Amino acid sequence: MAFPCVDKIEQRTQKFLQQSIDGGPEPAYSNPVSGYKVYHHNKPFLMDHGGVLPSLDIAYETWGELNEDKSNVILLHTGLSASSHAKSHPDNPAPGWWEKFIGPGLAIDTNRFHVICTNVIGGCYGSTGPSSIDPKDGKPYATRFPIVTINDMVRAQFEMLNSMGIHKLYASVGASMGGMQSLAASALFPDRVGRVVSISAAARSHPYSIALRFTQRQALMADPNWNKGFYYDGVPPHSGMKIAREIATISYRSGPEWEQRFGRKRSQPMTTPSLCADFLIETYLDHQGERFCLQYDPNSLLYVSKAMDMFDLSASVREQISQRREANWKRVLAGQGTSAPANAATPPEEQDQDQQQQQVAACSTDDVKQQSKSSEAGSAGKETGGSQAAAASAKEQLEDLVKGVSGLRDIPTLVLGIQSDILFPVWQQKEVADCLRESGNKNVTYYELDSMYGHDAFLLEIINVGSAVKGHLELRG
Amino acid sequence: MAFPCVDKIEQRTQKFLQQSIDGGPEPAYSNPVSGYKVYHHNKPFLMDHGGVLPSLDIAYETWGELNEDKSNVILLHTGLSASSHAKSHPDNPAPGWWEKFIGPGLAIDTNRFHVICTNVIGGCYGSTGPSSIDPKDGKPYATRFPIVTINDMVRAQFEMLNSMGIHKLYASVGASMGGMQSLAASALFPDRVGRVVSISAAARSHPYSIALRFTQRQALMADPNWNKGFYYDGVPPHSGMKIAREIATISYRSGPEWEQRFGRKRSQPMTTPSLCADFLIETYLDHQGERFCLQYDPNSLLYVSKAMDMFDLSASVREQISQRREANWKRVLAGQGTSAPANAATPPEEQDQDQQQQQVAACSTDDVKQQSKSSEAGSAGKETGGSQAAAASAKEQLEDLVKGVSGLRDIPTLVLGIQSDILFPVWQQKEVADCLRESGNKNVTYYELDSMYGHDAFLLEIINVGSAVKGHLELRG
Repeated sequence: MAFPCVDKIEQRTQKFLQQSIDGGPEPAYSNPVSGYKVYHHNKPFLMDHGGVLPSLDIAYETWGELNEDKSNVILLHTGLSASSHAKSHPDNPAPGWWEKFIGPGLAIDTNRFHVICTNVIGGCYGSTGPSSIDPKDGKPYATRFPIVTINDMVRAQFEMLNSMGIHKLYASVGASMGGMQSLAASALFPDRVGRVVSISAAARSHPYSIALRFTQRQALMADPNWNKGFYYDGVPPHSGMKIAREIATISYRSGPEWEQRFGRKRSQPMTTPSLCADFLIETYLDHQGERFCLQYDPNSLLYVSKAMDMFDLSASVREQISQRREANWKRVLAGQGTSAPANAATPPEEQDQDQQQQQVAACSTDDVKQQSKSSEAGSAGKETGGSQAAAASAKEQLEDLVKGVSGLRDIPTLVLGIQSDILFPVWQQKEVADCLRESGNKNVTYYELDSMYGHDAFLLEIINVGSAVKGHLELRG
Repeated sequence: MAFPCVDKIEQRTQKFLQQSIDGGPEPAYSNPVSGYKVYHHNKPFLMDHGGVLPSLDIAYETWGELNEDKSNVILLHTGLSASSHAKSHPDNPAPGWWEKFIGPGLAIDTNRFHVICTNVIGGCYGSTGPSSIDPKDGKPYATRFPIVTINDMVRAQFEMLNSMGIHKLYASVGASMGGMQSLAASALFPDRVGRVVSISAAARSHPYSIALRFTQRQALMADPNWNKGFYYDGVPPHSGMKIAREIATISYRSGPEWEQRFGRKRSQPMTTPSLCADFLIETYLDHQGERFCLQYDPNSLLYVSKAMDMFDLSASVREQISQRREANWKRVLAGQGTSAPANAATPPEEQDQDQQQQQVAACSTDDVKQQSKSSEAGSAGKETGGSQAAAASAKEQLEDLVKGVSGLRDIPTLVLGIQSDILFPVWQQKEVADCLRESGNKNVTYYELDSMYGHDAFLLEIINVGSAVKGHLELRG
């Protein structure tokens, strides 16, 4: 039996090896993005989980005129692997990922609004991320890059807004991870956000979506070329990336569309079935993987997808992070010779404990296995320790979330979900809307759209998604 | 940052390398199954896609007494990776995968019925599969094993039944791939099946489930240790198998259960988040992968999951295969020196064309890419060439399927679906039931169960699934 799909992967590896021997150009992880501007933040930037970047860059693009009092700014947030290139412009005429949503008279009307879209930190399209150079040694950070959160991404954006003299956003808009950022922006800076659009996002990631991203990361990290993240002068983990993208694609699209588009058609109906791509749906996935495997930095995929997993607007989580930040700021500022913040709520023991635990984590796989085993051993009913306790705990967690989003109570918010989305299912959209309403927000608009495109509907449903966005931005207020 | 999950994989690889240097035992791919009997079929066995096994073994286990006229036989079919060990018995007291469904007074009452469960061909638990020895050269078949179909599995089972003098089954019962076999048995041998139970199965695989299995195969085949299937004297592709199982596990379980069981809990809440398994849902997936990665033969996973993808009871597909089989039998029998079958409906050109196309397939990735690209380029609406055409085509396909299952019209059939199943969604169950009814079957029972366990409900819902099975087996007729 022939395996052209395996040969192809091997050929690409050999090409990279040869390039590296020939001293040819290293693979370019940056997408062909160009024409963006860069904000350079020349101060230490503290991350939620204790990492500190000595400085950082944010790449961004803009559309529409900024008005005199800087009150017409829409901050548009990107999904996991999208760049700041949401729309074509003179410095980069290539179509952007929301090309038909942004423009004069469109969903985001550039006759009215000044739109800013940034690349997230942790990414690879011009903002500081794992492929950026660590000034300490002139080499890429790789997996020495600190763990990054959605809040970190948003805080970096607001440092940029500060530098631009923009105090308050007309609106914070985003879909998927962009919706998470949109919600995070209003939770972190409620006085600086005029209204919110959250499409196919969540107020906290649920285990099914974590599972989908986990398998992608595992597939990538299993590629020997990933090399624990230190591949920048060698062969990139293109094989792992390809599989990661194939898995991701399943979660981005829904069944009904594929049923109609591919059905059970084979790419070469007269041939004997093969174990490489064979059905049209397989060649489609293969193609998605091929397209993406050298387009996005693998380490960025790890960090940014992990940031999505960790996203949780619950009050208890926000409080915990806030305390940790205060303690860590103290350390940072001390190291920088500047004064400590007003109050440091976290006892020093927490930090020690944290370090201790970290050592445990590095050799904890067996413990974890034990733990997992014991929960496995039980029968279905026993697994959770009783559904009553689970229900009580679910109620508490919901209250925690309501408390966590209470800062948004005065911000008109559009929550839009897609009924065929399996990655950010509509019950999660309803959760966002319900929690906002429960916290006292009287201006929540909640729509469900019956698109067959699943999670990707926000890229494809120009009219159905666009109308909701336009209405929310232009009618309210 | 530490990556204990990556280290662990590497350590296992090293262990296998060391064993191979030390001349230690090769990894055992067979599950600790034992106590099964073996039927040896000492004649050439022709497969649907033209492969021929010179002989084959079928491993099987039985429970309950066979009555005198051999009329109380229930043939129980397995899912993808399950063995024939459905239930404990004196020769193997370990609990089986349907332990609580089979026994005196249980869903399948061993006081009434003689239950036979076989290992499928293509598998690795005693029946002939890729890890079996090819008598031609004394080495494992590996990927020289011919492509196997669900029909091939069933035909092999009926060869075994013939040898036992069992003409007619009281019932054919199965879930998941077992349900496919159950339907296939009644389609192939309508006079030899008394009733059918199909749980969480399908009359044809849909693209979403093909996609889920494709990514598993891709992850496995990307493991360098897979070595195009020739790993039996080297390091097994345990890393690829682990990832494949993690992806599979996502499709076997549903969101609601995980929400309740794991929520957003982390395994080591006080540690800094890591890129290895971190949330409980991740340690659970990791554990599932660890458990499975050396338990099942990787090549069997490829062949058997591919068989599921190809499953399609549509009349046109069955007719095509039937014609191919007749032509191929002619060749086989000629080669064996025996007489040709009565009529060979397929012109010899078909075979030539098939071979030609196969050569194309081996270097066709680029063509496929082109094809995929062009369908990609279009906007959402253009992709399918119009929804009207798609609807017409869908209608024709459904009629084709109705025709394909018309042989089952006199067989009482239970179709049971799980509402939270994403791998074999209820709309597919409904399709099976509707097509059977449309073809004239007046004895179709259709149930949907609101279990939160997704596809795996057939293993866990002892009462809710069990009652439906028992009722169908004992009330009707």
